[in-house]
Amino acid sequence: MSKVLISEVGPRDGLQNCKQIMPLEDKKRWIQAAVDAGVEEIEVGSFVSPKLLPQMADTGDVVRFAKTIPGLEVAVLVPNLKGAQMALDAGADKLTIPLSVSETHSIRNIRRTHDQVIDEAKAIADLIATLPEGKRPHFEGSLSTAFGCTIEGPIPEAQILKLSERLMAAGCDEVGLSDTTGYGDPKSIRQLIRAVRATVGNENLTGVHLHNTRGLGLANALAAYEEGITTFDASLAGLGGCPTSPGASGNIVTEDIVFMFESMGIDTNIDLEKLLAIRAILSEALPGEELYGFTANAGLPLGFKGQPVPKPDELVN
Amino acid sequence: MSKVLISEVGPRDGLQNCKQIMPLEDKKRWIQAAVDAGVEEIEVGSFVSPKLLPQMADTGDVVRFAKTIPGLEVAVLVPNLKGAQMALDAGADKLTIPLSVSETHSIRNIRRTHDQVIDEAKAIADLIATLPEGKRPHFEGSLSTAFGCTIEGPIPEAQILKLSERLMAAGCDEVGLSDTTGYGDPKSIRQLIRAVRATVGNENLTGVHLHNTRGLGLANALAAYEEGITTFDASLAGLGGCPTSPGASGNIVTEDIVFMFESMGIDTNIDLEKLLAIRAILSEALPGEELYGFTANAGLPLGFKGQPVPKPDELVN
Repeated sequence: MSKVLISEVGPRDGLQNCKQIMPLEDKKRWIQAAVDAGVEEIEVGSFVSPKLLPQMADTGDVVRFAKTIPGLEVAVLVPNLKGAQMALDAGADKLTIPLSVSETHSIRNIRRTHDQVIDEAKAIADLIATLPEGKRPHFEGSLSTAFGCTIEGPIPEAQILKLSERLMAAGCDEVGLSDTTGYGDPKSIRQLIRAVRATVGNENLTGVHLHNTRGLGLANALAAYEEGITTFDASLAGLGGCPTSPGASGNIVTEDIVFMFESMGIDTNIDLEKLLAIRAILSEALPGEELYGFTANAGLPLGFKGQPVPKPDELVN
Repeated sequence: MSKVLISEVGPRDGLQNCKQIMPLEDKKRWIQAAVDAGVEEIEVGSFVSPKLLPQMADTGDVVRFAKTIPGLEVAVLVPNLKGAQMALDAGADKLTIPLSVSETHSIRNIRRTHDQVIDEAKAIADLIATLPEGKRPHFEGSLSTAFGCTIEGPIPEAQILKLSERLMAAGCDEVGLSDTTGYGDPKSIRQLIRAVRATVGNENLTGVHLHNTRGLGLANALAAYEEGITTFDASLAGLGGCPTSPGASGNIVTEDIVFMFESMGIDTNIDLEKLLAIRAILSEALPGEELYGFTANAGLPLGFKGQPVPKPDELVN
């Protein structure tokens, strides 16, 4: 395995955690620049109530724009059938419904029990099935709080496996694992990936959404990669906050995970210098918003990816 | 393997990169508190010229204090024979001489060629050999800039292997690998550990000093652990700076690496809550100095290491 897919979730998971609302034109600039840097999949928004998340109110327009870019996989989050209908109308390529494996969290967060979310997933799958084959978007059920919940604590593995089965039975094309709370560690990541893959089949778990809340984001991604995971969510500049901010998402920083994989000789298809340059769009569009990232701060290593190194005596130093 | 040794290098690598000088009494408080939290090895200082590093001027006193704490492995850095003599006089348990595998870096940094550093290592080993057996401190040669140099770029592996052999031949008890520049990645870490171990023997490479300059510190530590490395250097609160600061060290944050290993069920012997509490000593002793760390910011997960979780209906939310 020498290729991974970095799925940029900043326009969704990043922006929904920012207080400022990014104007539509800036979202378009960002998405276009990301594609120009080589990003192949972008979660461009979420079809949720604009009252709850005004940052996502223009998701339909964003999807329609993103769909004009050849080759880009345009992903969206849909909490329910209504959102899925909007996603289909806009032409999204991939729909993800989150299911919190902690039922307490599910009820408090979206006021739905597990049964209700599974019913919603089934209704979405049925809706997708009405489309002609070849026109159907990919449909993922994302098991959130999979590595622990801030209300319930650790969630029994058997419960997670059961829910992964029920999502597949409801008609999802695959399931994903989401460390919403940043509770995961390399061992628990490996263990749950193995258990879920043993339950739903290796081909039906290919992606993880990891957070860097306690600094383990890249170590966890490495462990997931070694288990055979090929799709990794990340947010440019870790947009959406750090653990110290309320409502923080603590996403893995796209630039840093691209740096890790590219350093290891694993192809992300992303030009890291171009990717780093996109941070300027965020600075302009979201004045005062803090941008994170170690690689951006430190710069690329001398001789990165075989680039020529000037002879020491040519250096000013 | 279910036990690792976290070697606290903050009093040396952290403090030497701070502008403020920590008073001796605060160093003592820190070291005592670290031992009380379970830390088993501390690099307490460096025997260098106080003109160059006034922060380290009291290293002799610090060693003498640390030696009064039963069971603690008291480590110091020594750049040369003079420093080693002072370390022996003070009674240090472990001496480390750094050898930059980039000769340009070595010359610019300490004005010594590889041959000169190897000669110094030999002189130190000879000095140690004059002590009675059982009284001799452990002597490590640390291969710094091992994963790349900010002047020379990548360093040929053959050159690093040759230097590791020469350090052992000079009389070092073992060699260590130091990612001084934060250039390493999980693949290069694995590769160099394997190559050096194949050269000097597994038992003669057991420790790594990794930096988090580009955010890969814990991923690299995980890879090193999986290769059989058992000693990991880290600095409380990542003391000594971040990549954005000039002269930054970008050390791995002790709290975060302890969190990673303990979460994985790997014993560090360290009580994480006690460790986190020591940050208060740094805040008091170094006013205004920035303290880093994801785990400190986010707090421990609910149910960490099997701690009881309150029932959801008992939570105020």
